[in-house]
Amino acid sequence: MTDFTDLIDGYYRFRGGEWQQERERWSELATGQQPKVMIIACSDSRVEPATIFGSRPGEVFVVRNVANLVPPFDASGGLHGVSAAVEFAVTKLKVEEILVLGHGACGGVNASLTQSLADSKPGEGGFVAEWIGLLDEAREKVVHQHGTGPEGQTALEQEGVKVSIKNLKTFPFIQKALEAGELKIHGAVFAIADGKLRVLQDDGRFEAA
Amino acid sequence: MTDFTDLIDGYYRFRGGEWQQERERWSELATGQQPKVMIIACSDSRVEPATIFGSRPGEVFVVRNVANLVPPFDASGGLHGVSAAVEFAVTKLKVEEILVLGHGACGGVNASLTQSLADSKPGEGGFVAEWIGLLDEAREKVVHQHGTGPEGQTALEQEGVKVSIKNLKTFPFIQKALEAGELKIHGAVFAIADGKLRVLQDDGRFEAA
Amino acid sequence: MTDFTDLIDGYYRFRGGEWQQERERWSELATGQQPKVMIIACSDSRVEPATIFGSRPGEVFVVRNVANLVPPFDASGGLHGVSAAVEFAVTKLKVEEILVLGHGACGGVNASLTQSLADSKPGEGGFVAEWIGLLDEAREKVVHQHGTGPEGQTALEQEGVKVSIKNLKTFPFIQKALEAGELKIHGAVFAIADGKLRVLQDDGRFEAA
Amino acid sequence: MTDFTDLIDGYYRFRGGEWQQERERWSELATGQQPKVMIIACSDSRVEPATIFGSRPGEVFVVRNVANLVPPFDASGGLHGVSAAVEFAVTKLKVEEILVLGHGACGGVNASLTQSLADSKPGEGGFVAEWIGLLDEAREKVVHQHGTGPEGQTALEQEGVKVSIKNLKTFPFIQKALEAGELKIHGAVFAIADGKLRVLQDDGRFEAA
Repeated sequence: MTDFTDLIDGYYRFRGGEWQQERERWSELATGQQPKVMIIACSDSRVEPATIFGSRPGEVFVVRNVANLVPPFDASGGLHGVSAAVEFAVTKLKVEEILVLGHGACGGVNASLTQSLADSKPGEGGFVAEWIGLLDEAREKVVHQHGTGPEGQTALEQEGVKVSIKNLKTFPFIQKALEAGELKIHGAVFAIADGKLRVLQDDGRFEAA
Repeated sequence: MTDFTDLIDGYYRFRGGEWQQERERWSELATGQQPKVMIIACSDSRVEPATIFGSRPGEVFVVRNVANLVPPFDASGGLHGVSAAVEFAVTKLKVEEILVLGHGACGGVNASLTQSLADSKPGEGGFVAEWIGLLDEAREKVVHQHGTGPEGQTALEQEGVKVSIKNLKTFPFIQKALEAGELKIHGAVFAIADGKLRVLQDDGRFEAA
Repeated sequence: MTDFTDLIDGYYRFRGGEWQQERERWSELATGQQPKVMIIACSDSRVEPATIFGSRPGEVFVVRNVANLVPPFDASGGLHGVSAAVEFAVTKLKVEEILVLGHGACGGVNASLTQSLADSKPGEGGFVAEWIGLLDEAREKVVHQHGTGPEGQTALEQEGVKVSIKNLKTFPFIQKALEAGELKIHGAVFAIADGKLRVLQDDGRFEAA
Repeated sequence: MTDFTDLIDGYYRFRGGEWQQERERWSELATGQQPKVMIIACSDSRVEPATIFGSRPGEVFVVRNVANLVPPFDASGGLHGVSAAVEFAVTKLKVEEILVLGHGACGGVNASLTQSLADSKPGEGGFVAEWIGLLDEAREKVVHQHGTGPEGQTALEQEGVKVSIKNLKTFPFIQKALEAGELKIHGAVFAIADGKLRVLQDDGRFEAA
């Protein structure tokens, strides 16, 4: 799949196969979505939630951005794409589970770890640099303990998931839903190389599912 | 798939099936991603690009947010999640095609069309209201011509895709890539109800693929 | 396949499968057809030449009507659908083989054999009655020898093929092409029940291929 | 597939494969056909309905002639091959859907558009010229609006389908079946080059399926 023609070809396969088999389901879905699960994942082409979890259309509300980040609650105005998606999912769709899904070999995490884009101008790496600034505090801790090599990379991928979860909890409506037992938040990292999913445990460690 | 246990079950099916069949491929992917295509799609649970286009891991870099929106270039600082993703995809990964993918029955578009969340506070609909403010200009035109019923909804879903494409073109590095013939931008709307993909044509109309 | 929706579904399967596999071929075909073979077959839903012979797009020019009939050459004007098709195939496309393909359990042949539609008005069976009048002479001979039962039916299916071949030979351009060795004419009957194809031999008998 | 030997080879593949897998089905089909759908298509070798729609034996009653034409109802006697087939399909087989299927790059339509065979004698192009005279009225309108180039060709391919549908509606038994809700008539054009099927809409436009 390397160009738009490939996408259209894929669409025809979908329409000629899977869509027809689930025609009735699509007809129901047209009346509205009722996902119970939200996933916040990376834009990385290797981390497709529908593939990794085998979810079907209508099941998972998905946000994807560089390094699966969630900024903290900020009521001072301006555009907040992730906040809008979380607000919509939790207050309107009433999703019951949110998964923040990190992954191995994450380019955004690596740019944070190595500060490779520091001082870049917007359009020349500056947008990414600013965005992954959300990881700054975690990065300092990680680099101090694990350095900027492979060990640091893995550690920051895991810490990044924790940062996003921490930020999710700054949203008043999330706090409320958590307290009411209407929402659960999970973290996990999918390590591409060995195909393992490591899930965040209550004690803060990530353990293979 | 209604809770986290279902996700883990799905992960095991993936690991026991598809992942094993493509073990070699995943091993290659672990060394880096080289997608040629970027898709900007809605977070809506019914619009999973990997499903609609049958793409495989490593093939498509994906941004998903409410109503598949792209804000215009803004160098004044602050967090810009979509801009970061586009910058990373175009300047670093050198994707050659970007598809902005709208869809039928879009809740974000509907909130814009009907202004149902106007004047909401952040956390109570205000984040969504602010975010879909990106559609304000298009909405005025659409409502004037088609009203706020089903016809207006379809029209704004299509106009929204055009807004995102227009905004993409405000990024200097996108302009440069377009001029150099290194990048193409496409628009399409997937109508859930009848399963049709309508593609933006050169003359501005959307036509079934 | 019982309604139009089924046809459209089938088209999507074709577009998502076979068409994509032969995309290059279709691209070539778009520039023009160069079939070497013409088949004149019955409209009967069970006698699909592409299925029986496994032909691919672009390979066989096909006429289908009730009872696979060819009227004799008639230069006196009026609409001649079959003559137009034969003229186009032989003088313009230069097909090198024509196969007249009859089949078992042919309703048109049966209506001739039993004269079940004799004296019907146009629109009430009269069009069919008039059309299968092309078999009148053959019918008389067959009924005399084999009666109007199953034996007569099989005999008239075979004789009907011979009638069409005889009529083909009344066309001056066919005579010319046959004499020049540029065209061959074949006859065959596909017996649905046992799936056998019986081919017209030089001595006038039909023998299993 | 370039000669009769290839046809026989193809028949053996059919008998050794598909026929055996569906032996039971063929046994049932031998007792009679009960198609619900009729397709009127062009004789063109590239437009095989069974291929494009993936129909199976027994499912579609098919007429094929040059340019997929239907003459209007004419009770004045003489041979009417298409009328016989339509009469048989609607009054005897009780098909519930008729599709008139045009196609791109149609030689018959082109001969009408460009009048390349005008004044030819029967056997030298005259049969085709007379037959495609059914398009004369549509051609005038099309040439006036779109000229005789590629745009005119596409327009006349679409208009030709409408002409055949209009003529179908002149048959009293068709009118009756339509009024009783027992029959539907559809139009479509298969564009060979891009593999798209464009379907006639209620408003007279052709739109990709």
